Amino acid sequence: MVEKAVVIALGGNAIRRHGEKGTAEAQLANVRRTSRHIVDIIRAGYDVIVTHGNGPQVGDILLRNEIAKDILPPMPLDVCGAESQGMIGYMLQQSLNEALNEAGYARPVVAVLTQTLVRGDDPAFENPTKPIGPYYTEKQAGDLIEKNGWKMVELPNRGYRRVVPSPRPVTIVEREVISRLFHGGAVVIAAGGGGIPVVDGPGGTLHGVEGVVDKDYTAALLARLVDADDLLILTDVESVYLDYGSPDQKVLRDMTVAEAKEHLAATHFPPGTMGPKIEAAIAFLEAGGRRVIITSLDSAGDALAGRVGTRIHP
Amino acid sequence: MVEKAVVIALGGNAIRRHGEKGTAEAQLANVRRTSRHIVDIIRAGYDVIVTHGNGPQVGDILLRNEIAKDILPPMPLDVCGAESQGMIGYMLQQSLNEALNEAGYARPVVAVLTQTLVRGDDPAFENPTKPIGPYYTEKQAGDLIEKNGWKMVELPNRGYRRVVPSPRPVTIVEREVISRLFHGGAVVIAAGGGGIPVVDGPGGTLHGVEGVVDKDYTAALLARLVDADDLLILTDVESVYLDYGSPDQKVLRDMTVAEAKEHLAATHFPPGTMGPKIEAAIAFLEAGGRRVIITSLDSAGDALAGRVGTRIHP
Repeated sequence: MVEKAVVIALGGNAIRRHGEKGTAEAQLANVRRTSRHIVDIIRAGYDVIVTHGNGPQVGDILLRNEIAKDILPPMPLDVCGAESQGMIGYMLQQSLNEALNEAGYARPVVAVLTQTLVRGDDPAFENPTKPIGPYYTEKQAGDLIEKNGWKMVELPNRGYRRVVPSPRPVTIVEREVISRLFHGGAVVIAAGGGGIPVVDGPGGTLHGVEGVVDKDYTAALLARLVDADDLLILTDVESVYLDYGSPDQKVLRDMTVAEAKEHLAATHFPPGTMGPKIEAAIAFLEAGGRRVIITSLDSAGDALAGRVGTRIHP
Repeated sequence: MVEKAVVIALGGNAIRRHGEKGTAEAQLANVRRTSRHIVDIIRAGYDVIVTHGNGPQVGDILLRNEIAKDILPPMPLDVCGAESQGMIGYMLQQSLNEALNEAGYARPVVAVLTQTLVRGDDPAFENPTKPIGPYYTEKQAGDLIEKNGWKMVELPNRGYRRVVPSPRPVTIVEREVISRLFHGGAVVIAAGGGGIPVVDGPGGTLHGVEGVVDKDYTAALLARLVDADDLLILTDVESVYLDYGSPDQKVLRDMTVAEAKEHLAATHFPPGTMGPKIEAAIAFLEAGGRRVIITSLDSAGDALAGRVGTRIHP
């Protein structure tokens, strides 16, 4: 069997489905199901690195910090992100071990806490756009802007929400270790939530910053850094579409980087959802990647075998 | 320079000092100072694995979960322990990178989420003894016993506190990966808080349990599993003493396993504090370890060089 190397970027519903309250039991049940899909990919001959989002989980951690703030000092976003990597990494690690054992595949599984280096002068810091954490009333929002210097946005009928910068990933601090583990045969869980964003200071220092790196950008960067052949981006839909949601929507099975750029320029892919995934795909392929597949978790195995999903190639 | 292998078990005050409220800034400042001591040890020719406690941190996470429980489902102890490994592992990873850079030593640093296998029939599950989390009033304690089935103990003048089982560690699930990274030259942070306790079920499944494994026992087990020469247990005191705290207290500089067992039997080492450290030391040395040193963080370098601290040998 040919061993191929793939970085899998799990979508949010791999861990918590839309509308779920996020009990530990419900999240673990989703992660178990996800892990069986990942093990199917390993059985098909792939070495895998698993990356994942953390939006709902870090949102809950931030909300708990906020509610308890008169009693305990609230942790900043970078520390909350690290906590969410611990939480989700643990659940994935345990479930992947279980699914590998069920399948009779003995492989070490390891979750590596991951820091993503970003530039301190990234323009994103001037223009925070990524909503995080709980919704607030107008009054609460005003207090938080005044007290913490947060930037908030109003979302119609839902209230106010904090927005933070979403800088581009430059490199992954733990790249060498992750690569070594991956090429040594371990199933590696890394770069959760896009990695904890850090900037470098004088004398080789690193400092956590309040921001969120797009997880698909980080997955694409990680795939390049570890020399993976394929990047598998899992999301809510089985394929990428043109005119998605319209009566004329048209499924895309194969496209080149040039075609992807054209569709992106024609605003077929919304900025908040499919857009960043297509941009991540382009970045990976332009840097030498072989293939990107965008599909749903349930279709992951079939998509790698070329039967469903959307493939993007150089 | 001879490369020697040491597992360092950090005491609680390496991350949060007694009486501190535990802001992220204060904890990071302590971790920075701790990291400089660890890098001094690396410069003296040691390969190191760093383990650490998580009592105050997991206590805060549990309290935040408790305060927010009407709004968000509280996470069980194993998940909170994983979060604390994320939080502390991140701070250590960042600070160790920084201290290594300052010293001009390029070494990869990696924090590995760690599960510790315990026996489902460990007698500790019948007799929970380890206090965790916040203090409660008698009324709150009664409600929690009834609603959650918790076991609580009353601590004079302070209130009620939850106690959980403290089972013995059997093995470390991630031992192979940790050993590989360590012998490959990485500075590894692992087994935080004694590791997340898990029991095995049918078909190779693992399940988190509500309990806390003593961090020094886990450090001793880890030191054996990775074939470390030395185990360095850091605590609040510079040395181990006989009749500690009495006018006749007598410092112990060197002792054999046989002597350590004698002093333990003569109840020189209290169960909650020095006792488990001495037991961990004995377990490591009886399994083939070369040397255990017990001292304070500030004396760690001098103690490894044989100038201060307490050495225990076979």
